[in-house]
Amino acid sequence: MKHYLSINDVDSLPAWVEEAITLKQNPLQDNALGKGKTICLLFFNNSLRTRLSTQKAAMNLGMEVMVMNFGSEGWILEYEDGTIMDQGTSEHIKEAARVVSQYCNVVAIRAFAKLKDKAKDEAEEVLTGFAKYASVPVVNMESSTAHPLQALADAITLKEFNTKINPKVVLSWAPHPKALPHAVANSFVEMMKLQNANFVITHPEGYELNSEITKGCTIEHDQKRALENADFVYVKNWSSYSEYGKVLKQDSSWMMTQAKLGGAKFMHCLPVRRNVVVEDAVLDGDQSLVVHQANNRTFSAQIVLKKILESL
Amino acid sequence: MKHYLSINDVDSLPAWVEEAITLKQNPLQDNALGKGKTICLLFFNNSLRTRLSTQKAAMNLGMEVMVMNFGSEGWILEYEDGTIMDQGTSEHIKEAARVVSQYCNVVAIRAFAKLKDKAKDEAEEVLTGFAKYASVPVVNMESSTAHPLQALADAITLKEFNTKINPKVVLSWAPHPKALPHAVANSFVEMMKLQNANFVITHPEGYELNSEITKGCTIEHDQKRALENADFVYVKNWSSYSEYGKVLKQDSSWMMTQAKLGGAKFMHCLPVRRNVVVEDAVLDGDQSLVVHQANNRTFSAQIVLKKILESL
Amino acid sequence: MKHYLSINDVDSLPAWVEEAITLKQNPLQDNALGKGKTICLLFFNNSLRTRLSTQKAAMNLGMEVMVMNFGSEGWILEYEDGTIMDQGTSEHIKEAARVVSQYCNVVAIRAFAKLKDKAKDEAEEVLTGFAKYASVPVVNMESSTAHPLQALADAITLKEFNTKINPKVVLSWAPHPKALPHAVANSFVEMMKLQNANFVITHPEGYELNSEITKGCTIEHDQKRALENADFVYVKNWSSYSEYGKVLKQDSSWMMTQAKLGGAKFMHCLPVRRNVVVEDAVLDGDQSLVVHQANNRTFSAQIVLKKILESL
Repeated sequence: MKHYLSINDVDSLPAWVEEAITLKQNPLQDNALGKGKTICLLFFNNSLRTRLSTQKAAMNLGMEVMVMNFGSEGWILEYEDGTIMDQGTSEHIKEAARVVSQYCNVVAIRAFAKLKDKAKDEAEEVLTGFAKYASVPVVNMESSTAHPLQALADAITLKEFNTKINPKVVLSWAPHPKALPHAVANSFVEMMKLQNANFVITHPEGYELNSEITKGCTIEHDQKRALENADFVYVKNWSSYSEYGKVLKQDSSWMMTQAKLGGAKFMHCLPVRRNVVVEDAVLDGDQSLVVHQANNRTFSAQIVLKKILESL
Repeated sequence: MKHYLSINDVDSLPAWVEEAITLKQNPLQDNALGKGKTICLLFFNNSLRTRLSTQKAAMNLGMEVMVMNFGSEGWILEYEDGTIMDQGTSEHIKEAARVVSQYCNVVAIRAFAKLKDKAKDEAEEVLTGFAKYASVPVVNMESSTAHPLQALADAITLKEFNTKINPKVVLSWAPHPKALPHAVANSFVEMMKLQNANFVITHPEGYELNSEITKGCTIEHDQKRALENADFVYVKNWSSYSEYGKVLKQDSSWMMTQAKLGGAKFMHCLPVRRNVVVEDAVLDGDQSLVVHQANNRTFSAQIVLKKILESL
Repeated sequence: MKHYLSINDVDSLPAWVEEAITLKQNPLQDNALGKGKTICLLFFNNSLRTRLSTQKAAMNLGMEVMVMNFGSEGWILEYEDGTIMDQGTSEHIKEAARVVSQYCNVVAIRAFAKLKDKAKDEAEEVLTGFAKYASVPVVNMESSTAHPLQALADAITLKEFNTKINPKVVLSWAPHPKALPHAVANSFVEMMKLQNANFVITHPEGYELNSEITKGCTIEHDQKRALENADFVYVKNWSSYSEYGKVLKQDSSWMMTQAKLGGAKFMHCLPVRRNVVVEDAVLDGDQSLVVHQANNRTFSAQIVLKKILESL
């Protein structure tokens, strides 16, 4: 594996999930693998879980870690070719990516969608720019359109808690006061397409995700019907994709409640707004897997870094 | 020891001070103790000494360290139960504390008093929230009402420089242009109550500290009388506690001078405003212990972390 | 060597360059030298290369690293003696430098020129303050008037790519939309004065550097004539020194082009504004050494830290 940009960079999801669960039993088992190797975590946006779990995973592997908030600590990057750089940007991605590559063995990048310009967000200029010009492997710590470390952690969590051959897994949209990106939902959908499951996506009309990603998935606009007999309910807000970045609906009727959840397990990537996205009773109850999911972020990062280190 | 939230979490102050002085002779003696263990330092406020000395202490013990500026790098936390989180906060302390606990073996927190609402500051929502929901030990790196790592460093410094059975130790208020919290003064008072000393607190009227903390202490409003025959003078500004967070007095008559100090040793937690809190002559003279106190911050953190690691 | 504040702190440039090239072959060869030693990197300004390469160099030597953004994470420092500190500054350099020294074995400082007040910039209050009051060696990670880690990296790069006994090296001013400091140019000139080379400085009239630094150097205001038969062309913008901090000229006629460059190697310290300072064709061509220069930042920092560690 050269880069880890998408969940589709996993060659065998079941094998990786199995291996991640094994190393979770003994997180320091590969502590010699990363000796003398360095990872550089570059944050263009805020982070709690990703920041700490990716550091932890790298340290478990014996790597050295350098963390940098690119926006506030570095220089504003230019991504366009041929620009006369006499305005706000001070350094081109071509130089930045090549230079950073020389100080580490792996670069990990977080750069969210700005939700102003669909084409620009889908071009993934930060992640793609680093992947194109870096001379070392690049790991996606959430880009405009994908969050594959989260999706891999979710796959691990599903494996740990699933008891059925063909569980019913529902991805349900939820309300949120701010416009949020599609990255988590996209990667969850892509990951589910690699699984055996009865997978249903439910959201109000107007909240269709990118149809290239959801192609082949069941989409149900009636949340109640979608949730019937669900084994796992993954809740997440996203803004409109067709009316790009718009918040079309805020009413609380789509909030997840214990009553709606029934006997299903509840999943969310966090951070989560209580009593907006999901009611307290769900998060405070036994069916919530959110803390397990967050724990598995360490092991999804660790399996990805392990695979990269093995291929160096 | 589960958490280190207050100087009263020390089971035997003389024993800890003794042990800290011993490990100061050979700071790397317990370098194997923290191997494979991680501490996460979460800063909700600025820090120089605490940031560096706590890192240093953890590294001396062989631990891995992750440092995070929670405010600028993470998400704004909610602390109230039952809130409909449709406003500025994006993540609840319940999730944040549980999640962070999974990435490390110890969490250390700095969260100052905001000095707007006494009840809220005294509720210590950040520190108490982490202590309540974290599944790992929590260390107080200065909270709204306490700074027990500083107080422990001060106890070490007093021990190193004291030559008497019953030294006279004076805590003297000093002027300052900004409203400052009570945390350092509170913990110093609590620490002195665990010591054999003739301890006197002096401040202008209106600057009484929380009477639950100063209960049993001698309070003297005449600074000159308080300082008579002092062996150690600990100078610190704090804002009014009764008129909560107000600056009642700024005149320089309470500034510490070499003349007032006499033959006593001078102590301050730093940072200190020269020629406002204390005149240059004191800080530049031989009686100042401020740099020694700052050095002992490493060893107060190290003894606390050592005790925690031993109890894991 | 006590401190590394200027390229003139190098006792023998050829010997250091040779040793740096040797350790570049095996960067971990001195990994035991820094064991149990700590470096503290204090940033008063943004940084990409310096931040990462200095960390990397320290880690290659087995040191522990603490990184701190002094401005946003610490306290605002006072540098003047005798000030009544009742305004914006909260801590004096005397305390800060002494205190930080106790938490590490080496302190490295980045503090740019503010370009408002020549005398103040030339006093180098931050760097000089730390060097004066710190009890450990201080490394300059770019100060108001000097960037000796860059100049040393440039010397390494010149050595690696030079094939002549007496190469022609040209330092050429280039346009830039913002007023930039003189530090890189100053240290490059000082470094060239320690080399055998035909060294020419070219810039428009009004852009003369500090004449104490350029004393003895050839200055040519005709860029075309300066570039004739050049082997290496080092391009860099700086603001006016005589009309201190002013941008006198922005027209693009001084931009470096492939046509002007001829067969010479192109050098720049980065970050560089494409098509303002230098055209794309140069940076994207084979004659550009900028990525090599950035790589050598690790080894210039590593040789400096090695010399310091050997002298502790």
